[in-house]
Amino acid sequence: MPLVYAFDHKHRRAPMELKDLLGGKGANLAEMTSVLKLPVPPGFTISTDACREYMRSGWPKGLDGEIAKQVRKLEKEMGKKLGDAGDPLLVSVRSGAKFSMPGMMDTVLNIGLNDETVDGLAKQTSGKSGEDGSRFAYDSYRRLIQMYGRIVMGVDGEPFDRLLDTAKDWDGVESDSAISAETLRRLLGRFQDVVRKESGRPFPQDPEDQLRGAIEAVFRSWNGARAKAYRRRENIADDLGTAVNVQVMVFGNRDDSSGTGVGFTRDPATGEAQPYGDFLVNAQGEDVVAGIRNTETLEDLARRFPKIHSELLAIFDRLERHYRDMCDTEFTIEQGKLWMLQTRVGKRTGVAALRMAVDMTKDRRIKLSREEAVARVDPNVLDQVLHPQFAPGSFDVLAKGLAASPGAAVGAACFSADAAAAAAGRGERVILVRTETSPEDVHGMIAAVGILTSRGGLVSHAAVVARGWGKPAVVGADALAIGSDSFKVGSTVVEAGDMISIDGTTGQVVLGEVDVISTEPPNEFKTLLSWADAIRKGKLGVRANADTGVDAKTARDFGAEGIGLCRTEHMFLGEDRLPVMRRMILARSENEETAALEELRRVQKADFVEVLEAMDGLPVTVRLLDPPLHEFLPRTEELIAKEARGDLTGDESAMLGGARLWEEANPMLGTRGVRLGVVKPGLYAMQVRALMEAAIERVKAGGKPIIEIMIPLTVTREEMALARSWAEDAIAAAGSTKGVKLSIGTMIETPRAAIRSDEIAEVADFFSYGTNDLTQMTFGFSRDDVESRMMPLYLEKGLIDRNPFETIDQKAVGELVLESVMQGRKARPDIKLGVCGEHGGDPESIDFFYKAGLDYVSCSPFRVPVARLAAAQAVLASASKSKKK
Amino acid sequence: MPLVYAFDHKHRRAPMELKDLLGGKGANLAEMTSVLKLPVPPGFTISTDACREYMRSGWPKGLDGEIAKQVRKLEKEMGKKLGDAGDPLLVSVRSGAKFSMPGMMDTVLNIGLNDETVDGLAKQTSGKSGEDGSRFAYDSYRRLIQMYGRIVMGVDGEPFDRLLDTAKDWDGVESDSAISAETLRRLLGRFQDVVRKESGRPFPQDPEDQLRGAIEAVFRSWNGARAKAYRRRENIADDLGTAVNVQVMVFGNRDDSSGTGVGFTRDPATGEAQPYGDFLVNAQGEDVVAGIRNTETLEDLARRFPKIHSELLAIFDRLERHYRDMCDTEFTIEQGKLWMLQTRVGKRTGVAALRMAVDMTKDRRIKLSREEAVARVDPNVLDQVLHPQFAPGSFDVLAKGLAASPGAAVGAACFSADAAAAAAGRGERVILVRTETSPEDVHGMIAAVGILTSRGGLVSHAAVVARGWGKPAVVGADALAIGSDSFKVGSTVVEAGDMISIDGTTGQVVLGEVDVISTEPPNEFKTLLSWADAIRKGKLGVRANADTGVDAKTARDFGAEGIGLCRTEHMFLGEDRLPVMRRMILARSENEETAALEELRRVQKADFVEVLEAMDGLPVTVRLLDPPLHEFLPRTEELIAKEARGDLTGDESAMLGGARLWEEANPMLGTRGVRLGVVKPGLYAMQVRALMEAAIERVKAGGKPIIEIMIPLTVTREEMALARSWAEDAIAAAGSTKGVKLSIGTMIETPRAAIRSDEIAEVADFFSYGTNDLTQMTFGFSRDDVESRMMPLYLEKGLIDRNPFETIDQKAVGELVLESVMQGRKARPDIKLGVCGEHGGDPESIDFFYKAGLDYVSCSPFRVPVARLAAAQAVLASASKSKKK
Repeated sequence: MPLVYAFDHKHRRAPMELKDLLGGKGANLAEMTSVLKLPVPPGFTISTDACREYMRSGWPKGLDGEIAKQVRKLEKEMGKKLGDAGDPLLVSVRSGAKFSMPGMMDTVLNIGLNDETVDGLAKQTSGKSGEDGSRFAYDSYRRLIQMYGRIVMGVDGEPFDRLLDTAKDWDGVESDSAISAETLRRLLGRFQDVVRKESGRPFPQDPEDQLRGAIEAVFRSWNGARAKAYRRRENIADDLGTAVNVQVMVFGNRDDSSGTGVGFTRDPATGEAQPYGDFLVNAQGEDVVAGIRNTETLEDLARRFPKIHSELLAIFDRLERHYRDMCDTEFTIEQGKLWMLQTRVGKRTGVAALRMAVDMTKDRRIKLSREEAVARVDPNVLDQVLHPQFAPGSFDVLAKGLAASPGAAVGAACFSADAAAAAAGRGERVILVRTETSPEDVHGMIAAVGILTSRGGLVSHAAVVARGWGKPAVVGADALAIGSDSFKVGSTVVEAGDMISIDGTTGQVVLGEVDVISTEPPNEFKTLLSWADAIRKGKLGVRANADTGVDAKTARDFGAEGIGLCRTEHMFLGEDRLPVMRRMILARSENEETAALEELRRVQKADFVEVLEAMDGLPVTVRLLDPPLHEFLPRTEELIAKEARGDLTGDESAMLGGARLWEEANPMLGTRGVRLGVVKPGLYAMQVRALMEAAIERVKAGGKPIIEIMIPLTVTREEMALARSWAEDAIAAAGSTKGVKLSIGTMIETPRAAIRSDEIAEVADFFSYGTNDLTQMTFGFSRDDVESRMMPLYLEKGLIDRNPFETIDQKAVGELVLESVMQGRKARPDIKLGVCGEHGGDPESIDFFYKAGLDYVSCSPFRVPVARLAAAQAVLASASKSKKK
Repeated sequence: MPLVYAFDHKHRRAPMELKDLLGGKGANLAEMTSVLKLPVPPGFTISTDACREYMRSGWPKGLDGEIAKQVRKLEKEMGKKLGDAGDPLLVSVRSGAKFSMPGMMDTVLNIGLNDETVDGLAKQTSGKSGEDGSRFAYDSYRRLIQMYGRIVMGVDGEPFDRLLDTAKDWDGVESDSAISAETLRRLLGRFQDVVRKESGRPFPQDPEDQLRGAIEAVFRSWNGARAKAYRRRENIADDLGTAVNVQVMVFGNRDDSSGTGVGFTRDPATGEAQPYGDFLVNAQGEDVVAGIRNTETLEDLARRFPKIHSELLAIFDRLERHYRDMCDTEFTIEQGKLWMLQTRVGKRTGVAALRMAVDMTKDRRIKLSREEAVARVDPNVLDQVLHPQFAPGSFDVLAKGLAASPGAAVGAACFSADAAAAAAGRGERVILVRTETSPEDVHGMIAAVGILTSRGGLVSHAAVVARGWGKPAVVGADALAIGSDSFKVGSTVVEAGDMISIDGTTGQVVLGEVDVISTEPPNEFKTLLSWADAIRKGKLGVRANADTGVDAKTARDFGAEGIGLCRTEHMFLGEDRLPVMRRMILARSENEETAALEELRRVQKADFVEVLEAMDGLPVTVRLLDPPLHEFLPRTEELIAKEARGDLTGDESAMLGGARLWEEANPMLGTRGVRLGVVKPGLYAMQVRALMEAAIERVKAGGKPIIEIMIPLTVTREEMALARSWAEDAIAAAGSTKGVKLSIGTMIETPRAAIRSDEIAEVADFFSYGTNDLTQMTFGFSRDDVESRMMPLYLEKGLIDRNPFETIDQKAVGELVLESVMQGRKARPDIKLGVCGEHGGDPESIDFFYKAGLDYVSCSPFRVPVARLAAAQAVLASASKSKKK
């Protein structure tokens, strides 16, 4: 196998399929050259094989020979020679890994210039346009020495910059581009002195040496600190290696018949089927990107260079036909000739992604199928379409937390739930800022437009509740030191009432008001999702986690096919209900307890009626009470302080006693879930009774309630059998349940339940995987403690691939799910299986759940569109994989 | 297959091997009758097959015929007839399951008596002894009606008792046995009236009906509430069923030439090879048990009935030869003839068990092999031998908690660690009473003779620490409401200074001083353990969990072959160290942190030297710091109260800040173990450095340190690799480690680590299973919260088979261990595997660990003898099982 391939090498397969070997950039260059026959400056690609070989055992044997052969070919093609003092061939050396790693690796331009060839270049340039080319030549050489010195020879950039400043002073000018040719010529020597002094070696005059040095530097840069960190973040394997592209230089900055630009085959912002681009006359690519000069549009290009403009549009057309997608290109015009330097399928906004995908199904050149359109849109972009965002522009980010619930919000900082509720009552927009939130803060969270916490992870109370409501939230921003009426970040103090902005999509926290744009989902949103539904229906269902009638309605509007998790605890947190719940918990006699339970039953029934009505005809999974009872009692800290001051009332004293009694060292592993049912046997019976009464009422009103009663935190079959018997007794006690579809199942959220799913399935009609808790217990990671404190460190140090609370850890948590599915289906082949953890809304996890054989996923209402699209993609991916086999 | 077998049925195998079919009692009766030819009243056994058939589908077809056939055989043998008015045959009906369930199921005696046969019995009895037999006959019949009414016909016993009282009043006598024959005769009618009135049916006069009714009642009693609860507790399967034994009645209460007794072939209390028994003239078995009359000894028997005495001794000899063990018997003498009613291998004290096992290897009649002796002694009895016990006698148990650390202790109740230390300083014996203990209480725990808590389970701080020191402890006694200087149980208040007694072997708490006996282990203790060691050596090692030089020495004296877990955190809890540790945690600069770490290194090194010296030449597994840092800070509650009162000092204020910073919602799943190392990178380096310096010092002193550095709470390979690199750097920094044997491994204590053991094994030299935490995470059971609150309820309701913190849950936690062993050995075939959780000292768990292929178990020092014996038994059991295959 050769180690080097010319761009026009005749590969057996399309170059785009050889990204492993050629890297992304190299594959695209070869595709443009050999398949599309576009005007690409000739060159060759040194394969990733060579890089891997280099990393293993140094400079590959035979590589020098192959490079030399390719250089001779270029010389012949261009009629120039590397190192020719009269008319030198100049080349660029660029990295190009399989996956794009923008800015992470090195590039060296203008290779081939030295003390002799620089004059040749000057002469060549002068010759053609009639102007003096020496300034251009000297500047190009100056750039090579500087770039080469830094990148290849490890010289610090600072002395070069100082010399450039001195040169400007000397000439009395402001910008680099205004330095005179003469001064530049003198700089060349000084720059070479810097290289010699700092590196101990002279700047290599031999262009072959230059070339080899640059290639080696690119190889080395693969293992640079920045590149490694980037790969870790993006989950790119370390052993892929990079390819290196050597290409003949073209110059957009030769004269006014030259120029450079970037072009898109359609508008990447709006998705409109209209070419879009930025262009600069007499400039280099970096000038376009740097934004120093105001760029011109494609219309300007048409005006100045009409022939080139139509040539470019023809190329755009060819690219779209070929790639069957919007392409992003870089082009250069050198003295009236168009060169294509790069192309690739381009990035786009969420709106544009939707619009393009749908449009291209109607485009007769592209003929995208609906399946292809569905497969093409990243489900996460739907979030952009559904939630407001910070408007583009600059602002100082005060702190960064976890992006817990997407969307941007602006409001006055408020430090307690009561204050937030009061301010909202006065019509103010507030952001609730708390160390962490608890059920006691719910009224303040409702009142706020956004939520910001300094502790807790992506499945903390604040995050879960905010996501459920589609309300922006940033959590675990641990740079914030939050006091009772202000917070501090470093030396910045933010007082109550100060305006702040948060972006729950990025985790940014900003002091002051940032402009926010909110977009209406385009029509294509619905179209694409309807196609997605057609693909996934009957294969993977999508439900929502919703606790109230309002949430259930929202979820249904977003396309949820039922409720996968209705948490009944939230029903006890209203201002009118909490006291009753507390009475139940603190009851000193059975009578007191029974009376409180009766009262709770009444309110809970009404809540259930609303939820069942909103989801009529669709299944509703109701989870019986799960959280530890102390969550319904006030926090002890405040009461202890009151007690110390002697201010405790009788009621509060009882509350403190109760809180102490129910306080647990590790509530996550404590008296919760079905264990509560064991400790307070009337509780679950009450809940099931209320639920059945609600269902019977719905039947009388002509409804079709479909109810799945879910027991939380089961670890043994016997627990599940006991809980099932409570539920069955309560159902029997509720009277005739004709017209109610009913089943009884459990959450699988402990490793033991997963491992012993065979036994549990004997007494459960369905399983719902509670992958949040399963992840916590499998890792021994408390979401409240570890996620904000440890996870950033763990990701940074590469101790973990990714946050397992965002994307399911297939290596262990996933193994447990697979084991459970196998055991469960073995014991009860028709068992219904779903997932209601946060992972139910994560595309990669959804793909896993589909492969694992689950029947549905369930996620927060605002995440339902994402899940619908991701589910369809999982179905498509799996089908195409099995087709390949 | 027949459903009924006569005691003299010729089975193909020894009846003792047919307990499944005949039940324990039936098998023993058949063994005595058909093999040993002892004088057993004839009878037959209705098999467990019949009972199971009955439970499935009612009274078995053909059973009546088989019973009738056997009854005819008995009639022929005895020369009496069932229901014969002149000389009736009387039989007893007794249950007899495979496993003994004392008192749990029903018995009916004197079947065959009715209004006619009662006179026949009276006549027969009178005839033989020359006295009037009518009183005996009436009383027997009265007992039958009463027993049959209650057991078979479901009549409440109370009316019978009332009538008996009336009869005594009538006759003016005090005891049942003094009621006159005439009054008894009149009672017979009244008793039958009660039966008719209460059950709606007459007492059956037909003996065949009586017999069938009694047999059916025994079948039914298998599923009685008491029996079911007992089986659950004892882990006996519900589907075994019971056998029923029908046997000819013999009467020890006929006259003064009759009697009854229980006999042991050796002394069950001391183990001395000397028959032992209790005997009563003219009495029934229940009189001996009830203890109403003072029993006589076997010497008295020899005096009164010399022939019978020697006959009995000859039988004892036969029994020991046959059963090759000490037997426990019931016998009856009826009018000068000896009958053996029952025999079985007898229960014995710990001392006796040891003594008998060793003695019997020297007994030429029994020829027990050493292996048999080792297999025979229940390892748990060694605890009795090693720890003081409450002396037999009566005392009122105030409360019961979990038996956390064996042994009995008596002392004054003390409610704070400081008070306990002060009182101990004055020479008082105190018991420390706390809601729960924390590292701050350690000085008080050291000072106390025993520890009592109202919260926490068997692996709570109090339990683990106490066991480590061999100090008696009762934990989780949740009936105790503990205040600041008293506790309350119901209406009883125990003030500071009141004397209390606790028994950590039974969990009993007693108000006042109970006599305590402490025994020295007999010589046989050492002998038996040396035999055990010979069996298990090279197959399953036994190490100890020990944190100090003193503990290590104790452990070595008890036969530990190394330390499986040296917890380094306890080294930071001394009065001189805690402040330094706190300085390290609260450090505001790197310098402060480094300085504190340096100071800790010095003290830690000295500690390590002591431990290594005590275990010289044996491996010492040192676990780097594991618990969450807040455990080293004071509890916030007290500081918050101080703050509210305005009493907080500057130091305390810093402490409160630190405590709040490190406070976690679920510390068990929080920043602990290797995560601490990630957050405080200098910490582990310091510990390893100290350890290596200690090892080097030991080498200089001529020692042979063998060190295993253990990283706690690993969940990914990358974590382990990082921690390993810290350790290796610190080792390199410590200088030459020549002469130190070193390895680096990890605890496997999260489900993820178990599932991903293949990856972790790539960078770990050994695994030690931390089955406490693994159990907590697999079940989602916090040891601190759930064990005392939920476990008793869970066991009672049968929601769980047994406390998984005592005996490993093979169904899920065990599955994870097996998976890990497989994965770990696949990746690193020579990986060393051990267990250091509390299960390492539990015999049944040890058997599992041996089968799982572990190299050693590790447990608290005082538990080492138990583990040595259990390990040998595991080896034997496994060998005998594979031989059978």
